[in-house]
Amino acid sequence: MTQNFNRRGFLTKGALLTGGVAAAAATTLAAPAIAQENPEVRWRCTSGFPNSLDTIYGGAEVLAKAVSDMTAGKFQIQVFQAGEIVPQPQAIDAVQANTVEMAHTAGYYYVGKDPTFAIGTAIPFGMNQRQQFAWLYHGGGNELYNEFLSQFGIFAMPGGGSGTQMGGWYRGEINSVADLQGLRMRIAGLNGQVLAKLGASPQAIPGAEIYPALERGAIDAVEWVGPYDDDRLGFHQITKNYYYPAFWEGGPTWHFFFNQAAFDGLPEHYKAALDTAAKAASINMVALYDVKNTAAIRDLVANHGVILRPLPQDVLDAAYTASNELYDELTMTNANWAKIYPQWKTFRDQIYEWFRVAEDTFDNYVYTKQANQPPA
Amino acid sequence: MTQNFNRRGFLTKGALLTGGVAAAAATTLAAPAIAQENPEVRWRCTSGFPNSLDTIYGGAEVLAKAVSDMTAGKFQIQVFQAGEIVPQPQAIDAVQANTVEMAHTAGYYYVGKDPTFAIGTAIPFGMNQRQQFAWLYHGGGNELYNEFLSQFGIFAMPGGGSGTQMGGWYRGEINSVADLQGLRMRIAGLNGQVLAKLGASPQAIPGAEIYPALERGAIDAVEWVGPYDDDRLGFHQITKNYYYPAFWEGGPTWHFFFNQAAFDGLPEHYKAALDTAAKAASINMVALYDVKNTAAIRDLVANHGVILRPLPQDVLDAAYTASNELYDELTMTNANWAKIYPQWKTFRDQIYEWFRVAEDTFDNYVYTKQANQPPA
Repeated sequence: MTQNFNRRGFLTKGALLTGGVAAAAATTLAAPAIAQENPEVRWRCTSGFPNSLDTIYGGAEVLAKAVSDMTAGKFQIQVFQAGEIVPQPQAIDAVQANTVEMAHTAGYYYVGKDPTFAIGTAIPFGMNQRQQFAWLYHGGGNELYNEFLSQFGIFAMPGGGSGTQMGGWYRGEINSVADLQGLRMRIAGLNGQVLAKLGASPQAIPGAEIYPALERGAIDAVEWVGPYDDDRLGFHQITKNYYYPAFWEGGPTWHFFFNQAAFDGLPEHYKAALDTAAKAASINMVALYDVKNTAAIRDLVANHGVILRPLPQDVLDAAYTASNELYDELTMTNANWAKIYPQWKTFRDQIYEWFRVAEDTFDNYVYTKQANQPPA
Repeated sequence: MTQNFNRRGFLTKGALLTGGVAAAAATTLAAPAIAQENPEVRWRCTSGFPNSLDTIYGGAEVLAKAVSDMTAGKFQIQVFQAGEIVPQPQAIDAVQANTVEMAHTAGYYYVGKDPTFAIGTAIPFGMNQRQQFAWLYHGGGNELYNEFLSQFGIFAMPGGGSGTQMGGWYRGEINSVADLQGLRMRIAGLNGQVLAKLGASPQAIPGAEIYPALERGAIDAVEWVGPYDDDRLGFHQITKNYYYPAFWEGGPTWHFFFNQAAFDGLPEHYKAALDTAAKAASINMVALYDVKNTAAIRDLVANHGVILRPLPQDVLDAAYTASNELYDELTMTNANWAKIYPQWKTFRDQIYEWFRVAEDTFDNYVYTKQANQPPA
């Protein structure tokens, strides 16, 4: 039972207690009753995503609605899409400065600050969604990530994911590593660094400009998210070559980033509401993506003639080697990375071992049976 | 924003408002302030599991703690292990009678009432954990399940899962379907019916009696959960033959079952707290199992000489056929089953298609690379 109440909650910028009613309560009721009261708090959350990515963007709205519902409307979090009050690249800075109390975004958008930001989200040949959640929630991962984030005055809770993404849309075919030479591809972060090692030319292009860039051939390829979001952007109108998988995003996990002082100022039961709502938003988003992607990939193939192509083995192998080289370089040169990566790698290798046994055998068996069954 | 307040919350058996403080508030504060107050509510939850299954049993405690923390200790749910106040087989009846307001158990324990109970949990060759969550949360599954449950005056929210379980411990080897003839195996529910079609003799044995029954050879095989729970029970002291996967439990999902009237009597923000905490408990349990199983399977193999054996292809194929026969029989004979199964099957087949593309390709690639890498 939690009956602690952090009175700093009344004092922080983020926690606004409406005077009248609460003052009456304070003078009339015994102390424990005040502690149980729900003070009015209004926060702002900047999303790292446009609301056109409704499933990812919706993660913050799901959290905000749950927090509001659980506090009888007294703890309100207003969500703004990327760029609306804070440009996406400044979201972490804005949380650090407490311009907004929180952000919902992808850590790997901030690899320019430090590549270590990416490890909380996804790095090439990392873990699938369940494994990344396992690492973050119970494998010591999120503690290590927060230790890293503490130097920015922030901390994070996992905030949903998409499952393994697709490897993107290519104007031409990719039949070997040779086809990557000079390939101008929209891809971000560490993933771009790995593809650059293979000869590609990674391009950082803002979301709104990606479609026209691919359409006019200013870029040769683009990776976006998965069938649902890609279907909405309409890349299939430009090319039918849809490759899989995104080896750089096996289980990309977004985070809710909080200003530490603003969070510390909340009543204990509001902190618990945020923590619980963040977990609920996580499982909700993955389930929602799985349902939407299932419908979308059928639509793309059946109604738009999209061809699903596996990335060639030699591309995967070259990328695997390049990724490990990059990780070794970072371990030598970046103290923050070196504090997390070895623990992450051991966890990954060991959880792979377990998933290979029951989980992957089950999956492979049922997928094969279903693929081979006569059409209904 | 939710500011509705269901005044029946004060009247139901489950919702006990302590008189003194609340009465003072009622006379002193304006009406909206009452609505925001957290009334004292005390509920009881019977778990379908012994607390020795600490991860599954812990799911109800995780929910109870979150609900308490989020209501500043005012909504308390006391969790009892199976048999402590309600025998496991009567948990659904006890919720229906409002003897307890809620239970945390596996629907498939109640196939004796109706086999349709199993479909919310897991049926042979069903979905993996993420797919089952997708079906329940956003694929219309939990709505269908609750429509079925409504005839018992209850409804349910998903409450965690274990991931694909192991296929169990066998005193002898299983090299073909012939080895299943007359095999006395502890296995429950629909799963037992499928194995019976293959010639095995399923045995319903209470948890505490399983180990001695296997030890003295009263049964030939037992399926329990997965490496973590199995390791604790010590089956490896009897036999080293540990088979995978449990084709009958690809993604078993427990539920929180609620008495409908008790739930309806709660303030709206307490209902939201239960809903959010149940989702948080779900993602938390899966992550916890994934971490614990990863350590346990290493322990079993490295320290106890356990041999991981795949169930033979002909066993899987025969069970696949038998399962489909059983499902067809149930569809013909059970109206409740017939209302859910066709929708479930279509969802399963379509989500398999999507998972085969990016997700399974990613998994298979990284598992193979990791398995083939030289030892560190």
